[in-house]
Amino acid sequence: MKQVLAEIITIGDEILYGQITDTNSQWMSAELDKIGIRTVRKTAIGDSREAIVHALQAAEAIADIVLITGGLGPTKDDITKHTLADYFGAELIFDQSVLDNITRLFSARGREVTPTNQQQAYVPANCTVLQNPIGTAPGMWFERNGKVFVSMPGVPYEMKRMMLETVLPLLQSKFETPYIIHRMIKTINIPESTLSDLIESWELALPPHLKLAYLPRMGQVRLRLTGIGTDKDALLADINRETEKVVAIIGKYFYGYDDDEIETTVAALLLEQGKTIATAESCTGGYIAHQFTKHAGASRYFVGGIVAYSNEVKVSQLGVLPETLAAHGAVSEETVRQMAENVRIRYGASIGIATTGIAGPDGGTPEKPVGTVWIGYADGTQTIAKKLALAQERSLNISLTANAILDLVRKQLSS
Amino acid sequence: MKQVLAEIITIGDEILYGQITDTNSQWMSAELDKIGIRTVRKTAIGDSREAIVHALQAAEAIADIVLITGGLGPTKDDITKHTLADYFGAELIFDQSVLDNITRLFSARGREVTPTNQQQAYVPANCTVLQNPIGTAPGMWFERNGKVFVSMPGVPYEMKRMMLETVLPLLQSKFETPYIIHRMIKTINIPESTLSDLIESWELALPPHLKLAYLPRMGQVRLRLTGIGTDKDALLADINRETEKVVAIIGKYFYGYDDDEIETTVAALLLEQGKTIATAESCTGGYIAHQFTKHAGASRYFVGGIVAYSNEVKVSQLGVLPETLAAHGAVSEETVRQMAENVRIRYGASIGIATTGIAGPDGGTPEKPVGTVWIGYADGTQTIAKKLALAQERSLNISLTANAILDLVRKQLSS
Repeated sequence: MKQVLAEIITIGDEILYGQITDTNSQWMSAELDKIGIRTVRKTAIGDSREAIVHALQAAEAIADIVLITGGLGPTKDDITKHTLADYFGAELIFDQSVLDNITRLFSARGREVTPTNQQQAYVPANCTVLQNPIGTAPGMWFERNGKVFVSMPGVPYEMKRMMLETVLPLLQSKFETPYIIHRMIKTINIPESTLSDLIESWELALPPHLKLAYLPRMGQVRLRLTGIGTDKDALLADINRETEKVVAIIGKYFYGYDDDEIETTVAALLLEQGKTIATAESCTGGYIAHQFTKHAGASRYFVGGIVAYSNEVKVSQLGVLPETLAAHGAVSEETVRQMAENVRIRYGASIGIATTGIAGPDGGTPEKPVGTVWIGYADGTQTIAKKLALAQERSLNISLTANAILDLVRKQLSS
Repeated sequence: MKQVLAEIITIGDEILYGQITDTNSQWMSAELDKIGIRTVRKTAIGDSREAIVHALQAAEAIADIVLITGGLGPTKDDITKHTLADYFGAELIFDQSVLDNITRLFSARGREVTPTNQQQAYVPANCTVLQNPIGTAPGMWFERNGKVFVSMPGVPYEMKRMMLETVLPLLQSKFETPYIIHRMIKTINIPESTLSDLIESWELALPPHLKLAYLPRMGQVRLRLTGIGTDKDALLADINRETEKVVAIIGKYFYGYDDDEIETTVAALLLEQGKTIATAESCTGGYIAHQFTKHAGASRYFVGGIVAYSNEVKVSQLGVLPETLAAHGAVSEETVRQMAENVRIRYGASIGIATTGIAGPDGGTPEKPVGTVWIGYADGTQTIAKKLALAQERSLNISLTANAILDLVRKQLSS
């Protein structure tokens, strides 16, 4: 079976000038991967006819499927549609179904269709229109010499819905694809080189159709094991066998697979044990609560938390003793212990966790430089406090602190 | 003056397979842009010799500067360095200064240098080594026919530090660049097409050396006005004049420029007026507190907040009346008013803000479908509550709720 190859083209000066991050192409390639289509290149270009034509030609040369996002908004900086029409040798024609969709969307919001929006109902004559149920710009599907080109809006949730409901099913019916299986094996609190040395002999003995990659990110290293083949069951068995081996070697640094995050691993342990958690955050400022609550169903184990940013709030709302703050300061073992213990009791949770530290870039002292952080854990039976010496960068310090306390909770719940 | 052009190449299967988002190339192009270097393409490819060579050739054909990230980690999936050595016709040679740097880093962390790390001290003979003060993989600078190629590690904070301290200054000394000035004009709570119609006659009258782009994101539309020229003062005067005009047209939907975010605009107003704020979050679950506290200096205006996720916590820690919850439910005007008023008083802030709603995907009812959200504002003189009817998607609902309440605070502080 021939491997089906895709290129993703992102159009927009805003990507080139660095005003926005392209998250679309990541999501798209992950979805293609799930159905056995391999992305071989991603190209981002500006709103320029010449660049678009060049990118289409280059993509047509190496890929079977070319997915294009961006350059379809209602405003004047968009030339994608005209360039596509020319590239495929067609005129723009008026499409009533597109205007009907725009009208429906606008009347639902109590708005009038503007002339700018009416222009969006013109599409190249030789494309198949893909309706956009939640936006005004339609998608467009072209075919030439067995290759498929799909143009979609750049607004992430519009693109995602169009991909899931229309584009991916159509691609699956058109192309025959091999099985690609990925297993992500997630580790925490072990550096990449140490992990590499630890699992070296296992890695060297991997069969040739399985490939390993190291993906470090914010204090975590994820291992991605990828298998490709035609026999799905055999491939899955191979992946499972090798995963089991390597997880045994990694031991306590391993916390989950695939879509697991450290906070969802903790959440699963809490649910399994019928426990709840509450947070008392100073330096992480609500970030840990957000890590729990960004996932649906968080109310089953997360009761709430406090962001005790000022010392006054630490005293009045969290019951930290003023004399503790006076004697040891807010960034201290004594303070973090009281924070964890008190939030547990006040919020009626099984477990209380706490953070206090100097996230930076300001606020450091010779004794407590930027990156000095205390984390605390209390479960009614014991209280644990731990000091971290982190980095210079504020957002990194916030993430690494969250990692550290969540991993401490994981270990306590697993022991 | 000839425009200096750059291409950014990102290497790594993890980008192609969609396991991680490429944030490096966004940051890099924004930095290049600041010094008048125009990024004309971004290409992401896998860890394949053939793809790397092809991308280098394509970039060499269109750009003066080629910046490469990724593919330099200590582990075995990296082939970038060998391919670069071949591409520039050189052997890999041992570099003592690189090993010294690795040894220094490891002893600071109390670790031994592993054989895997020692391999990182081999570099192509004809490159200039760029030391990596915070990581083990060195950067490499190559020149050929007046063009510059720089290979950097893919770890974001290592790459950023190398760019800021070494690469950008070297590029500025090597190339003569024009002035590019961007002005970002940020709007909130107005749809892109409405905004476009509102400012149409201004936009049509723009001088040809000024270009406008619409950048919609999560309920906000940013306008980017870009000017290019050789006379910096004249260009800046043009940008300032047109900005003043369009801001007057946009009126109450305008909230800030450039790096301003809605929360930093609110923060600036609070500081200016000597006021403080506290948050009571239910459906946003700590996200709004994190928006404030992710910025340095938040302690000057943000005293803290509560994530009142469960009804018990709303009652015990925030003083919402049990009879209110029983009669109207947690997602109601009455509840959000009490949340905002009580957090203001209990946390000793000038202003209290609150959110309660159904973020989804579960928890909706016919009367209160997913996306039903109440936001509240209290300043001691008045309390304002507002109902939102948002979307189906959890993370979008969290962002849009934060937008709405922060914009409400902005308007109150500006009126």
